[in-house]
Amino acid sequence: MENLDSNKPIGVFDSGIGGLTVVRQLISVLPNEDIIYFGDTARVPYGSKSNATVIEYSIQNAKFLLEHKVKAIVVACNTASSVALPALEERFNVPIIGVIIPGANHAVKSTQNKKIGIIGTRATITNKAYSTQIKTLGDDVEVFETACPLFVPLAEEGWINHDATILVAKEYLGELKSQNIDTLVLGCTHYPILSEVIKKVIGENVELIDSGVATADEVKMELEKLGLINKSNAKGSYKFYVSDVPAKFKEVAELFMGREVINVEKVELEHLQSF
Amino acid sequence: MENLDSNKPIGVFDSGIGGLTVVRQLISVLPNEDIIYFGDTARVPYGSKSNATVIEYSIQNAKFLLEHKVKAIVVACNTASSVALPALEERFNVPIIGVIIPGANHAVKSTQNKKIGIIGTRATITNKAYSTQIKTLGDDVEVFETACPLFVPLAEEGWINHDATILVAKEYLGELKSQNIDTLVLGCTHYPILSEVIKKVIGENVELIDSGVATADEVKMELEKLGLINKSNAKGSYKFYVSDVPAKFKEVAELFMGREVINVEKVELEHLQSF
Repeated sequence: MENLDSNKPIGVFDSGIGGLTVVRQLISVLPNEDIIYFGDTARVPYGSKSNATVIEYSIQNAKFLLEHKVKAIVVACNTASSVALPALEERFNVPIIGVIIPGANHAVKSTQNKKIGIIGTRATITNKAYSTQIKTLGDDVEVFETACPLFVPLAEEGWINHDATILVAKEYLGELKSQNIDTLVLGCTHYPILSEVIKKVIGENVELIDSGVATADEVKMELEKLGLINKSNAKGSYKFYVSDVPAKFKEVAELFMGREVINVEKVELEHLQSF
Repeated sequence: MENLDSNKPIGVFDSGIGGLTVVRQLISVLPNEDIIYFGDTARVPYGSKSNATVIEYSIQNAKFLLEHKVKAIVVACNTASSVALPALEERFNVPIIGVIIPGANHAVKSTQNKKIGIIGTRATITNKAYSTQIKTLGDDVEVFETACPLFVPLAEEGWINHDATILVAKEYLGELKSQNIDTLVLGCTHYPILSEVIKKVIGENVELIDSGVATADEVKMELEKLGLINKSNAKGSYKFYVSDVPAKFKEVAELFMGREVINVEKVELEHLQSF
């Protein structure tokens, strides 16, 4: 018997718009699934907030998605994935998938020479979220980490192939390049936007791991395992909620999604805080 | 008779650490004043938040400073200055000084050819905070505005003379340069950190207006007028409160202040929200 829940949408939340690169990969891997996205643009960034605050916000975001009857929740935010996953799993009775474990898995499978680089926001690198996970998967792997704080605003400016972006990438990636890594984890959902420049600077022979791709694969496997894959042949529908609509939102969102973004609705913070 | 309040500290708040460039100018102009700073680092940035939220946060920040018995409040944040000043003036019975009116005044006094450039965050430029104020002071002045979103993260990275910063500045300031402006308002408290690069790119003949300098002069005049200048000959003492302590806080704060930053204390958001 078909599981009735399989017709329900997948819920995705992020601290802002970076998670749209994960949605893009979900659509590519699971084209018949409906998706509800929540971007907490009023409270972005999570990286500079305390763990307690990130957990509180993540629970509110998950409750908002569950109000919309989602069958699974994708935490498309590195900070929330590294901090809030256990609290979410404890409270909610749907599959919850973060971006860190799938990204770390892909990286360990990909590396030949056992030298993996990780780039992310300062918070992700300081938390050692990826490196801790990678070490549990393979203790013979060497991990080299660098924070690249300017990559997020460069991606949001849409300077995906600007000379300044190349100079910034050379500054950030020089040390990693000298370590002879063969695999580089893009440990921030914004970074796939800059993958062309990153590849050019780090070297064509280095495999870039997009956590969004790894996460989309993981979501598919999980839904298959639970019999929750949508059996419809129709293309999925997409609805986007944000807690604030910043300037240039549509333009940046479409750069991240690689397609038109319609159906955007603002959620009042009061509603989130009422949970 | 000396006003007893004159011994009290000056309160300064900002959405984060940018306001420290204003504190630096206050210390330079008023070396005998004690200063209490509050940086709302847990809720930064304000620029992408709704006016109602910025007003609510500003009132909480002001109440926090008034708990510490400040004799005046400096709103060292462009967004809060452009949105929350009337609400603060209505509620609190101390002088309240924002950064926009002093900056606009200085610019209008400085320009000879009546062509003023303004740079700021996307929020400040979209709000037309400076241009509206400048137009009320001189309707024969032409104003040219450009948002420079990458300047904040470049300043926070401390890349004050990096080749990438020069390329970014050339991209942002090219159009303004072609307009033959003779005065440029640094309409964001982070920008004075990059003034060397900005000057190099826009031209040595263009006068840069640091709103922090203008605001410090305005605070001095206001305190003198009200008999609130501290008569002590001792050097002032400084205390810094933040709502979160992000990575690299001390390093960046010291770059912004131009001196050592000690006496930093974290304030719980629950305390601010209790007001």
